[in-house]
Amino acid sequence: MRRRIGILTSGGDCPGLNAAIRGVARAAYEMFDAEIVGIHDGYRGLIEGDYSEMTRSQFSGILTLGGTILGTSRTPFRNMRVIGDDNVDKVAMMKKTYKGLQLDCLITLGGNGTHKTANLLAQEGLNVIGLPKTIDNDLYGTDFTFGFHTANDIATDVIDRIHSTAASHGRCMCIEIMGNKAGWLTLYSGVAGGADVILIPEIPYDIDKVAEVVKRRAESNKGFTIIAVAEGAMDKDESKLKKKEREARRAAGFSSSAYLAKQLQEKVGVEARSVVPGHIQRGGTPSAYDRVLSTEFGVHAAELIRDGVFGVTVALKGNEITHNPLSEVAGVAKLVPPDHQMITTARDIGISFGD
Amino acid sequence: MRRRIGILTSGGDCPGLNAAIRGVARAAYEMFDAEIVGIHDGYRGLIEGDYSEMTRSQFSGILTLGGTILGTSRTPFRNMRVIGDDNVDKVAMMKKTYKGLQLDCLITLGGNGTHKTANLLAQEGLNVIGLPKTIDNDLYGTDFTFGFHTANDIATDVIDRIHSTAASHGRCMCIEIMGNKAGWLTLYSGVAGGADVILIPEIPYDIDKVAEVVKRRAESNKGFTIIAVAEGAMDKDESKLKKKEREARRAAGFSSSAYLAKQLQEKVGVEARSVVPGHIQRGGTPSAYDRVLSTEFGVHAAELIRDGVFGVTVALKGNEITHNPLSEVAGVAKLVPPDHQMITTARDIGISFGD
Amino acid sequence: MRRRIGILTSGGDCPGLNAAIRGVARAAYEMFDAEIVGIHDGYRGLIEGDYSEMTRSQFSGILTLGGTILGTSRTPFRNMRVIGDDNVDKVAMMKKTYKGLQLDCLITLGGNGTHKTANLLAQEGLNVIGLPKTIDNDLYGTDFTFGFHTANDIATDVIDRIHSTAASHGRCMCIEIMGNKAGWLTLYSGVAGGADVILIPEIPYDIDKVAEVVKRRAESNKGFTIIAVAEGAMDKDESKLKKKEREARRAAGFSSSAYLAKQLQEKVGVEARSVVPGHIQRGGTPSAYDRVLSTEFGVHAAELIRDGVFGVTVALKGNEITHNPLSEVAGVAKLVPPDHQMITTARDIGISFGD
Amino acid sequence: MRRRIGILTSGGDCPGLNAAIRGVARAAYEMFDAEIVGIHDGYRGLIEGDYSEMTRSQFSGILTLGGTILGTSRTPFRNMRVIGDDNVDKVAMMKKTYKGLQLDCLITLGGNGTHKTANLLAQEGLNVIGLPKTIDNDLYGTDFTFGFHTANDIATDVIDRIHSTAASHGRCMCIEIMGNKAGWLTLYSGVAGGADVILIPEIPYDIDKVAEVVKRRAESNKGFTIIAVAEGAMDKDESKLKKKEREARRAAGFSSSAYLAKQLQEKVGVEARSVVPGHIQRGGTPSAYDRVLSTEFGVHAAELIRDGVFGVTVALKGNEITHNPLSEVAGVAKLVPPDHQMITTARDIGISFGD
Repeated sequence: MRRRIGILTSGGDCPGLNAAIRGVARAAYEMFDAEIVGIHDGYRGLIEGDYSEMTRSQFSGILTLGGTILGTSRTPFRNMRVIGDDNVDKVAMMKKTYKGLQLDCLITLGGNGTHKTANLLAQEGLNVIGLPKTIDNDLYGTDFTFGFHTANDIATDVIDRIHSTAASHGRCMCIEIMGNKAGWLTLYSGVAGGADVILIPEIPYDIDKVAEVVKRRAESNKGFTIIAVAEGAMDKDESKLKKKEREARRAAGFSSSAYLAKQLQEKVGVEARSVVPGHIQRGGTPSAYDRVLSTEFGVHAAELIRDGVFGVTVALKGNEITHNPLSEVAGVAKLVPPDHQMITTARDIGISFGD
Repeated sequence: MRRRIGILTSGGDCPGLNAAIRGVARAAYEMFDAEIVGIHDGYRGLIEGDYSEMTRSQFSGILTLGGTILGTSRTPFRNMRVIGDDNVDKVAMMKKTYKGLQLDCLITLGGNGTHKTANLLAQEGLNVIGLPKTIDNDLYGTDFTFGFHTANDIATDVIDRIHSTAASHGRCMCIEIMGNKAGWLTLYSGVAGGADVILIPEIPYDIDKVAEVVKRRAESNKGFTIIAVAEGAMDKDESKLKKKEREARRAAGFSSSAYLAKQLQEKVGVEARSVVPGHIQRGGTPSAYDRVLSTEFGVHAAELIRDGVFGVTVALKGNEITHNPLSEVAGVAKLVPPDHQMITTARDIGISFGD
Repeated sequence: MRRRIGILTSGGDCPGLNAAIRGVARAAYEMFDAEIVGIHDGYRGLIEGDYSEMTRSQFSGILTLGGTILGTSRTPFRNMRVIGDDNVDKVAMMKKTYKGLQLDCLITLGGNGTHKTANLLAQEGLNVIGLPKTIDNDLYGTDFTFGFHTANDIATDVIDRIHSTAASHGRCMCIEIMGNKAGWLTLYSGVAGGADVILIPEIPYDIDKVAEVVKRRAESNKGFTIIAVAEGAMDKDESKLKKKEREARRAAGFSSSAYLAKQLQEKVGVEARSVVPGHIQRGGTPSAYDRVLSTEFGVHAAELIRDGVFGVTVALKGNEITHNPLSEVAGVAKLVPPDHQMITTARDIGISFGD
Repeated sequence: MRRRIGILTSGGDCPGLNAAIRGVARAAYEMFDAEIVGIHDGYRGLIEGDYSEMTRSQFSGILTLGGTILGTSRTPFRNMRVIGDDNVDKVAMMKKTYKGLQLDCLITLGGNGTHKTANLLAQEGLNVIGLPKTIDNDLYGTDFTFGFHTANDIATDVIDRIHSTAASHGRCMCIEIMGNKAGWLTLYSGVAGGADVILIPEIPYDIDKVAEVVKRRAESNKGFTIIAVAEGAMDKDESKLKKKEREARRAAGFSSSAYLAKQLQEKVGVEARSVVPGHIQRGGTPSAYDRVLSTEFGVHAAELIRDGVFGVTVALKGNEITHNPLSEVAGVAKLVPPDHQMITTARDIGISFGD
């Protein structure tokens, strides 16, 4: 039986996307009579009917390639139901493309936003299977998303390099790690990089407690402090004055690390610097771990197609590759629980969370 | 309450040993009044009373350091009970050192052999806690040992580099991955590196089936073949003739990959080469993943000391750091089950296991 | 004959400092009866008499270590002659420390500022030998400074990673490379990373010419553009209005890359993003190239001490390690000549310099 | 004026081949009306008329790619003039292909063997330009060949990793670095990796002198020894007995490092191990340095075509990209002079060459 499969990648790019695409394709070609249609630039391509018929050789040699050969874009879920000035019903358009292409199913690789739209399409009757990618690891129902461990390698390497400068200059270095809502990447790379302070969105910090650590270390024979601070980490006080202040600092170009460095320099009187590695955390070849995980996820998706299981997203639970209903996962963020074992571990070796 | 802790590292060195030692030490110093004694070169130091009192600063800056600051050696378990020419009862010597140092417990970092001796010492009444390190990942009771993922990164990088030569020359490259009994490292790096054939000790291979894959690829427009072969991978036929042949080939300096390359060159008529990365798979700075895992393992050991739990070895189960009785783990190897999900995954994308 | 050698590292830290220190020390210990005094935190330590007597083992194991074991600081040359509120003549203080320590010579590792002060001290009669370190490669008289090639590796790796995101999202990525006055690092990493546009301080750019390249690529099937822009790269127009604008943008937190991204987004209408890898370009273990060069430089300094040659700085000319008079080098910056062969090479493969 | 350019890569693959090919192609397309013909698998393709017409897009995205997109093979120079059983005059065949393709010139990327054949073709009246690639750096007339510095990075990384094991186990590790006749790679990576002993083909060693170093270190508090030994490094004694012995050991599967380890283990009584990283030294993405050099070499070749300069090979002299007559370079190997400055440098820090 011939099966036509549409694949798209949506949201921010992430190491392992191509490895997962290759996993789906190779397993599909091995297991059944597959035809694969590459949808361009995420949901935009599905809305606009922008796609190409793929051939087997296009999936060769992409295991190690960063980014996504299909292109990606951010089409926020909140806009999916909005009929804009152009009077276009995006969901209807997507269904139309799906039907027009005579697809038997659609594979969507993405994070939280992608999964919300995937669930919407499933509710509309399309055969959808999700694959959880994001360097933030904040997708509910899976222990790890692919991309996370590669980003952790990169962020840890950044912290390693910054250690040289921090120690040589006796400075306080504030390294800003990706993650607006979830602190997983900051927590892991902070522990792996030997940070002294880890600040994550889930645990609002007290600047004076952070300043205390910096001061104590500045006065010790160490002299320097390494702070891993998530993009979305926030000061404890939530008073109105602070809120304005926060808005003001963002407007003035202050990221979470720049704000922190400025505060610490003023409060403690040490040299404090901010480093924002930014997009490099999501680029380049996937790590060995992520290539394995992406491949497993992709192959499991193909197995689900073979078995006619749709409306689900692939997941890692313990050591097993399995899947969850899209409806259970869509729109649910997985944040770091403040009593998570790694938080306890970190505290046990003297790492401060600024609380 | 003051607690005196002995630490030793035994068996082959492995990335993450220092990170784990640091984890134990930092958590112990944070949590209670700890004194740490570094036993030199594994059980040899315990037998001979070769050790040094450690200070807090000695555990600083070692998170990223490969190898082990305590030194290591291989003192096979089978010799532990043997009273040699020197008329020395090694177990009695170890107990004597332990008592003489007034230790409250002994932390042993090692693999299967180390754990057998650790269990023996526990049976003799010492307070022992094991930490599972090995790049082979073949320790029963833990999902992963530390060191494994770093070795996987290195082995995968090796396969990546060999791809260049294989593709440019249209060759069959046989890359020998560490693992005499267990094929975990070969399986993972083979999948991560995009190998065409994966040969592991748990699945004896048929040389003709391997030759067939090489031939098919040589005749396709790919032209080259990548084979990840474990040190301990073996030919299917177990006839006497073959056995002698195998002994003969080892004696002639043929490793598993060299033997394989020779066979394939003769059978298929392609250029086949063997690459033996060897010790580089176990050296250098631990990966971000292994630094986290080693730290977690080390900290958990300190928590067990605090809680007075002994006769156990630390373990990862799913996402939880926990522990198993030494008696359950000692002497039990964790091999790759032939129906393991990753084997199925690999087969689903067309990877041959030569069976 | 016993010789007492003072060593200090000054200015921003840089990969290879420890390798060079080790080179000096090992060669000195091998060649003559050496005593080595480590001056702490650059000229600050020399001014304040902050130092420690070193032993041979302290130079072991530091070949691969980033940063500097001696610490560093920035004590601007312009302040050296200024007698501050504390009524301290810094030059006199440094001479006093030198005499008090009974040094036979002083080795100073640093960049342009460091060499100016080194020359000053040489003019005051001290036996000074300079070692040229800087990731900027802007020191006159040497083909390469150590640190530069490691920084080039890191910056190139950053550009590689950003390629993934640029290509996947069809974006214009502006990557800010260190270098306020000299564009060497941007030029090399731009060519190595496959940048489409390279903007350096030595060649003021025309934003409309850059916009044109971005537009042309956005409309081609590539879709994305990679721009390597030096920290100190500047717009061509130097009108007063622009000057205020530039001051205003710096005040508003706009770095050269952020400003560029903003302009291009407005002018071309593409998604443009800025990435500022910052301090990671100067941290971590030196590359193989820089370990060799640092060692050669360090050993040559020891040879100069042996031979009684002072008032010079070590240099690479072609393939030879040699030295220049400090007086010729101090205060002379080596900028990229606009007709440099690499500029021509870059233009020949279609790279735009925005001019 | 239209110009048709044939390109081929010959000999062992090497990082930077694709970067150089891209450099030729991009510059040629930019500078004149170019048509490029890719000759497959080196001179074999030229002999057999195996080639393909290339398009511009085929040179895109290959800057970072290891190996060669054109394929390569080893067709020894000594066979070029031999008319075999097939009664084929290979040189005549190559000329015929060149003429048949109406080429205006032929670019050959390769090492010493490649250049000998290139010179032969030039003498036969073809317009040939050579590009010097080899990880051995043994090509006369150029300071560096591309590929060398990448191989140096890899070999140095190998030595770094082996350091962990050596130090942890107190072993003598003999690391075999590529280079049968020339010791450049062993010398550079030995210095960069902090080797204690460096053995190169140009300086025959005395096993007893090496044993002495190993013994002295084994008895010191270091305990371990790192030896970088070239593939082609040889024992000093050249007596007939030894010669047979050497032949015998090769036949028995002993590489230079395995032989050395065996000897040292017997003579000194330490644990000695051999590591043979092999082909990984020539694979994978080129380093930043080599991407720049390859690009410069490629672009210079295109400039030479534009200017009608043939019968030359591109070269780096000091900081200048230039060229030499093929007739001067062909067949001349560049070995390490025993009084080379780096040898002196290495000796000055106590590295032994076993002499």
